[in-house]
Amino acid sequence: MVKKPLILVTNDDGVNAPGIRTLIEVLNEIGEVVVVAPDSPQSGMGHAITIDSTLFVRRVNSNNVSQIEYSCSGTPADCVKLGIREVLKRKPDLCVSGINHGSNSSINVIYSGTMSAAIEAGIEGIPAIGFSLLNYKWHADFSKSKSFVKTISQMVLKHGLPNGVVLNVNIPDIPGQDIKGIKICRQAKANWIEEFDKRKSPQGKDYYWLTGKFVNLDSGDDTDEYALENGYISVVPVHFDLTAHHYIKTLKSWKLDE
Amino acid sequence: MVKKPLILVTNDDGVNAPGIRTLIEVLNEIGEVVVVAPDSPQSGMGHAITIDSTLFVRRVNSNNVSQIEYSCSGTPADCVKLGIREVLKRKPDLCVSGINHGSNSSINVIYSGTMSAAIEAGIEGIPAIGFSLLNYKWHADFSKSKSFVKTISQMVLKHGLPNGVVLNVNIPDIPGQDIKGIKICRQAKANWIEEFDKRKSPQGKDYYWLTGKFVNLDSGDDTDEYALENGYISVVPVHFDLTAHHYIKTLKSWKLDE
Repeated sequence: MVKKPLILVTNDDGVNAPGIRTLIEVLNEIGEVVVVAPDSPQSGMGHAITIDSTLFVRRVNSNNVSQIEYSCSGTPADCVKLGIREVLKRKPDLCVSGINHGSNSSINVIYSGTMSAAIEAGIEGIPAIGFSLLNYKWHADFSKSKSFVKTISQMVLKHGLPNGVVLNVNIPDIPGQDIKGIKICRQAKANWIEEFDKRKSPQGKDYYWLTGKFVNLDSGDDTDEYALENGYISVVPVHFDLTAHHYIKTLKSWKLDE
Repeated sequence: MVKKPLILVTNDDGVNAPGIRTLIEVLNEIGEVVVVAPDSPQSGMGHAITIDSTLFVRRVNSNNVSQIEYSCSGTPADCVKLGIREVLKRKPDLCVSGINHGSNSSINVIYSGTMSAAIEAGIEGIPAIGFSLLNYKWHADFSKSKSFVKTISQMVLKHGLPNGVVLNVNIPDIPGQDIKGIKICRQAKANWIEEFDKRKSPQGKDYYWLTGKFVNLDSGDDTDEYALENGYISVVPVHFDLTAHHYIKTLKSWKLDE
């Protein structure tokens, strides 16, 4: 019998979110699944890790299911670190994060707990994918994502990924039959124009809620935003060498070292 | 009279940390300083933002000083967003974050609240720098950093930075006279080997503290780690296009879109 690949599954919406339940269902078909996911929602956590506080990990009761599940008091990146070092008996063949409730395309990758988990696995040399559906609702319809999640995960298991590269996959929120296919893309240049909603507490103190509008500043037809707007699933290879290599030469010309 | 440049200052160790006090002292010599910094330490926060909670901003009493100061209940990235949209009357000419108590070289940039603040400013099109001293102690000696912080900040004000690039500056923890100069570098390939310190609470529950060893996997002499080990200040240009452009062609050959 061929040994099944070991797959570490996590997310940032919490272990009970419908997105991760769909992911587990699909991945159970292709591997041995171990879940280590946050015990509460961690959206917008970026690549936070817990260094000034304790971490609790709890085996979750999962009768009549094939996966093993743990919930963790930490961030998505903590879950991956703990999963690899303390929970799993061997290095996983794949780490999959998501399915996120909401987009992680373009600049959102920077703020994304989902992608920080995938990146953390990538730092550990584990092939990793983050999946996101462009629908923020808790009860979004994740069923249309299933076949694509399966195909992409199988391809990564087959081909592997080079050290330092993970995949950021975003799925448009349209009916399954309208999804035109998968496009390999680059991250679009975009940002958020924040609009702080200023309020007064019953005690008379000012406070804010962070809200904002997403603005795509990129007219390229090879971006994730373009693919998603045109009915395609976007796949962006992501790395964590943040060096702006193209700017090193100019910076050297400043003669800071003299 | 020439108008002074407007400088937004923040950090991740909190508004009262000695590192940011040194930074403010230096930047007061070259510009009009407005501080918007976390009201408590935020180390390891990565690029977290506060979307599920309220944000409080408070004018800090700062008699007999030239800067204006605010403390904020949010993350470093929140501080920059709030600083730009709600506190400052015009777009700042520069955003400086730090001086961090501890290294943000190589892979640490991913976990860094200090650098997330600089990156957030960069996303907004503001030239930005994150400074870090390789000493985690609260009462580290930041005085040796002063002349370098001033020089690099002045150079960024003079030359500007292209859209999408910010600087990650790390300062070795050696006596000032032993610092050999400044080197423009790339981010070293490195990671942390986590060692979870497992303990039992008085109530009998297992919990963990995250600890670990930093491992430099990169033997290049053009990296930040190499510069720092050899007595130089490292300056890495950092961008937030995480696309692994070099891998797009290979990924397309997988024929995921067929």
